[in-house]
Amino acid sequence: MRRAVSEAATGTLFGVALNYRGLLQSRLEEFQQPPYQKPPVKPVLFIKTPNTRNGDGAPVVFPAGVERLQPGPALGVVLGRDASRVGVDEAMACVAGYVIVNEFSLPEDSYYRPAVKAKCRDGFCPLGSEVVGRDEIADPHALPVRLLVNGEVRQQNSTANLVRSIPQLIAEISEFMTLHAGDVLITGTPEGRVDVRPGDEVVVEIEGLGRLVNHVVAEEA
Amino acid sequence: MRRAVSEAATGTLFGVALNYRGLLQSRLEEFQQPPYQKPPVKPVLFIKTPNTRNGDGAPVVFPAGVERLQPGPALGVVLGRDASRVGVDEAMACVAGYVIVNEFSLPEDSYYRPAVKAKCRDGFCPLGSEVVGRDEIADPHALPVRLLVNGEVRQQNSTANLVRSIPQLIAEISEFMTLHAGDVLITGTPEGRVDVRPGDEVVVEIEGLGRLVNHVVAEEA
Repeated sequence: MRRAVSEAATGTLFGVALNYRGLLQSRLEEFQQPPYQKPPVKPVLFIKTPNTRNGDGAPVVFPAGVERLQPGPALGVVLGRDASRVGVDEAMACVAGYVIVNEFSLPEDSYYRPAVKAKCRDGFCPLGSEVVGRDEIADPHALPVRLLVNGEVRQQNSTANLVRSIPQLIAEISEFMTLHAGDVLITGTPEGRVDVRPGDEVVVEIEGLGRLVNHVVAEEA
Repeated sequence: MRRAVSEAATGTLFGVALNYRGLLQSRLEEFQQPPYQKPPVKPVLFIKTPNTRNGDGAPVVFPAGVERLQPGPALGVVLGRDASRVGVDEAMACVAGYVIVNEFSLPEDSYYRPAVKAKCRDGFCPLGSEVVGRDEIADPHALPVRLLVNGEVRQQNSTANLVRSIPQLIAEISEFMTLHAGDVLITGTPEGRVDVRPGDEVVVEIEGLGRLVNHVVAEEA
C-alpha cells in the first residue's frame, strides 16, 4: 500500500547522526579527544523542524552567505502507531512504511549535536511524495541508496551498513520519549557527503522506493 | 486579549540556550577552552518536540534511572504571523502574545548544543493555558520571573536580563529560518537552576501572565 506523505507522515522529523558504519569509523579518532573522550553510546538525534519540509521536484535554496551545502540521502521510516518503551522485537510493528529523504545540511564541525542553524533552513528536508508500506519492502536493511548529482552517482551505500537497525533505533529512542504515528525517523546519511551548487540537479534513489528529485537554486537577493 | 494555547500556540517550540546574562557570565571561562574557544556569537537554539507539551496542573514525570531533574522558568513568545528575515524594528509586530513556560531538562555538560535526550522527554514542556496578548504587557523586557518549589522562591530574575531581547531573537533566527504563526520562542531560563524531586510542587510566576503549576511525580514501574 502506498500513502501520500501529506497524510501519513505529518509528524516530527527526527534525524539520526553517525548511523552509517563507514561514517562512524572515520570519526572514531576524533571522538577520543576532548570533550568527547569516547564515541557516542546512544543515538545522537536532531530535529528537522517543520519549515524544512520540502517535496519531490521542489527547489532547495543555497543560502546566501554560506560556502557549502551538502545533500544527505537517507531512508525515512514512518511510524504507524505511537511507540513508547517498545522492545526491539515489537518495534517493526510500529512502522507504517518508508519514504525517501534528502536531509540537506551545511557542513559542520561537530557530529555530536547537530545545530539548528545548519540543519533547519527552509526547505532543507525534501521527502518523497509517497510512503511505501512496510509489507512492500522485503528487507529494509538491504536497500541500495544512491545520490546522483547532475546524473552522476556521487554516493552509493546500502542500509545494510546502518550502525543501528530500524528496530534498534525505535527501541532506543522510545525508551526515553514517545514516538507518534506520523513521525519520521531519518535513519542516517552515509559517509562521503558531497558539495552541491546552485544549478545542480540532486537525486536520491532507494531501491523499491523510487527517486526523489530536487534542484539547487541560488537565494534571491 | 487572551487566547487558548491550544489554538494560538500550536507550532514548534524553540528553546534559546544561554540567554540570561548571569548564566552566560558564569560559563564564559569554559567557553575559552576547546572545543569552543569562544562564546557563542549567535542564539543557540534547541527544539522541544511535540511530545514535550504539557499543561497547567499536569504532572511532570521524574524519569526512572536519572539522577537529577531541573525546571526552567521562561517567558514564551508566541508568533502571530510568519516571520522571515524580519528586521529588529518590525519584529514585535510578529508577536501575538506571551505564555508562561517551564522548560524541564536533565542537567547537561554542554550548553552549546542541548541534547534531545535531556530536553525532549514526554511532558518536559508545560505551558500556561493562555496566551496573553502583546498589548496587555506594557514592557516584556521588565517582567519579574519566579520559580517556587513547594511554596518557596528558589529562582528569581527578570526578563530585563535577557542577553538577546525578543526583537533581536526574532531578527536573528528569522534571518536563517522562517518562523511561523503559532511557533513559540522560549526566551531562556535564568542561572541558578535547582533540582526537584518526585512529590514537589513547581510553580512559575511571571508578572502579568499569572502562574503555571505542575507536580513532579515518580515514573511508574
